[in-house]
This record gives sequence, C-alpha cells and structure tokens, in this order.
Amino acid sequence: MSEFPPAMQKLIVELSRLPSIGEKTASRLAYHLVSHDRKLGISLSEAVRRAVESVRLCERCYYLSEDPLCRICSNASRDAALICVVEKPMDLVAIERVGEYRGYFHVLHGLWAPLKGQGPEQMRLAELLERVKDQTVKEVILATGSTVEGDATALYIAKLLAERGIKSTRLAQGMPKGGELEYADDVTLSRAFAGRSVMGG
Amino acid sequence: MSEFPPAMQKLIVELSRLPSIGEKTASRLAYHLVSHDRKLGISLSEAVRRAVESVRLCERCYYLSEDPLCRICSNASRDAALICVVEKPMDLVAIERVGEYRGYFHVLHGLWAPLKGQGPEQMRLAELLERVKDQTVKEVILATGSTVEGDATALYIAKLLAERGIKSTRLAQGMPKGGELEYADDVTLSRAFAGRSVMGG
Repeated sequence: MSEFPPAMQKLIVELSRLPSIGEKTASRLAYHLVSHDRKLGISLSEAVRRAVESVRLCERCYYLSEDPLCRICSNASRDAALICVVEKPMDLVAIERVGEYRGYFHVLHGLWAPLKGQGPEQMRLAELLERVKDQTVKEVILATGSTVEGDATALYIAKLLAERGIKSTRLAQGMPKGGELEYADDVTLSRAFAGRSVMGG
Repeated sequence: MSEFPPAMQKLIVELSRLPSIGEKTASRLAYHLVSHDRKLGISLSEAVRRAVESVRLCERCYYLSEDPLCRICSNASRDAALICVVEKPMDLVAIERVGEYRGYFHVLHGLWAPLKGQGPEQMRLAELLERVKDQTVKEVILATGSTVEGDATALYIAKLLAERGIKSTRLAQGMPKGGELEYADDVTLSRAFAGRSVMGG
C-alpha cells in the first residue's frame, strides 16, 4: 500500500482533527499547501501559532481577546444595565455588525445539549450568575439560536435569573426578512402568528 | 464595528485563502483552535511548517516525496514498460490502494482547461514526453478523470504520444459498481453500451 510521504501524512492527520474537515478535504488542503502555495503554508503555520498563543477569553464576558478585558468590556461608555447572552464569539460579531445594541455581552461557549452530553456546567453560566449579583444589570437578553438547544438553554437561564429577580428577554421569532410563506416551516409560521403586531394607520 | 482580536482575524484571513474554505468556515475553525483545542493548534502549526519545508515533488514522476525520488520510483522491481498518467497525487494514492497496478506513474499536477486559463504548458507534460524518449515505455495509461477536462487532456496527450510511436490507453468508462441504471446520466449509459463486453457461457 502506497501512502503519502510521512510529513504529508502527518499534516493530513492534523487537518482532519479540525471540525467538519474529513480525510478527503484534509488531503486536498495538504496537497494545495505543499504543491501550490508553500508561502501560504509558512504564513498559515505562523498565524495558527500566534493565535493560539495570544488569543484568550475576556475575563469578564468570555469573548475573545488578546488582553485581560476584551474591546467591548474595556469600553466604559456602553450600557451596563444590559447583558446580551450568546452561544459563541461569531454570534457576538453578527450582533455588533448590526451596530444597534449598546450593552455588554456574555459568551456561553456552549449550549445545554443533554443529547450531546453537554450539561449546564459546560457553559460559562456560573460566571453569568456571578456578573448579575450586584444588581447593576436590569435586563439579560437571551440571544441563543432558535434551535431546540438554543431555546432550552434560554429557558433554563431565564428560570435561574427569575429566581434572582433579574428580568430576561428573548429575541423575537418570526418570518426572516425576504422569507416566502410557502417555504416557511410550521414552527416559524406558528411563532410568526403568535407574535404578530398591529400595523399603524 | 467590532471585530475579532487581530491575531484571530489574521488566522481567519490565512485559513480563507485555502481552497474551498470560506470566511464562515475559517471563523469556525479559528474559534475551535483558540477556544477548544490549543494543543491541536500547536501541532497543526508544526505539521504545516514541516510539510511545506520537507515535502517536494519526485524528480522523475512528480509525485510527492521527502527524497529526490519517491517511494514508487525508488522501487526497481516495478514494470518500467508502463507509465500511468494521473492529474494529482490523490489519484495515484487511489490506484495504489487497489494494489493491482505494477508500473510507474506520472503526475501532471493539472489538466488542460482552457476555460480556466490552464494551458498544456501548466502541466508536467514536457517532462512526460522526455521520459518516454528512450523507448523503454511501451504503454502510457491515461488515467485522468472522466470529466470534460480529463477527457480533453487524455486526447491531447494521446495525440502527442502517437506522433512519437508510443501506445496510449484510457481507463474503461461505464457503469460504476453499484450504479442504478435509473440514475445513470446519458453519457455514462451511452459509454457503457458502446463498451459492452460478451458474457461467458
């Protein structure tokens, strides 16, 4: 049985350990690096090393940062009465891209997903409860995804916050912009009806 | 506009330069490395660097190798009368996995694809013609894919070899093992009919 040279084989093994990268994709990526773009290989190697060495989690909100506090937590001009809870850093970036939310964030780095063996203790939840203790926070916006796990996590956190007298809200659910009724699923349609609002006039 | 920390941003940019990796996938991969698996980040960084530094192309067949000649070309017991021409190293690996072919290989590292601006000079074709000069090679098996570009490349090479008096053959085309007639495309069915063989009895 012929195989790739050892250094290539090793690279394929490491690439396959990345989420959503199978062995075929890993082979294609490794081939591209060694045969077509060695310069990219060198700069990629360097970028991976630098990122894992210098990027850490913000000590307050657990977003990504190269300093103890992230760019958002270091900004004292935001609204300290609001915390928006998201699953992962990419969700925070999506919300910041809209540019309308002016409060702070809290990144859970996970969801409550019993079927995948992820309990509440695997999220940054205790840290959230610690943050709301001093009563500065008036509203926690639960912005986990509209999935079964996102909903379950939001429900679970809302209950814990209610016990502490903290108001929590959930992002509106309904038809996405540009959505055709014909193709909307039952749950989306049902929620869009339940959350319907009066039109002006 | 909030963005990822610079080292994370840089990693996302480098990852997006890989083929078939878009910005969303790159973000997810970078997040996995910095937040969930820093050890993988370190070993991946090292594996990429080592591979691009040590893996080169075999001086004879252009397969991947850490030595001047690859494992296959270094094996003097194979059949020197046969050269199997493939597009890329992964194709060679697929053929070697079957374990039946005993000749040598030649890796083109490309196909003739005028629509993508890839002319014959971007393949290792001159090198193939050089290899067949001494008349040791009796048959060149053109094992490029059954795609428009794979067919065109095979046709082009066959013509050049014929001018030099070298016989070339093409892999059989027909129904793949397990293929349902109902789902076969017209070209496959047409070729399967044209290439039909007599059954024993």
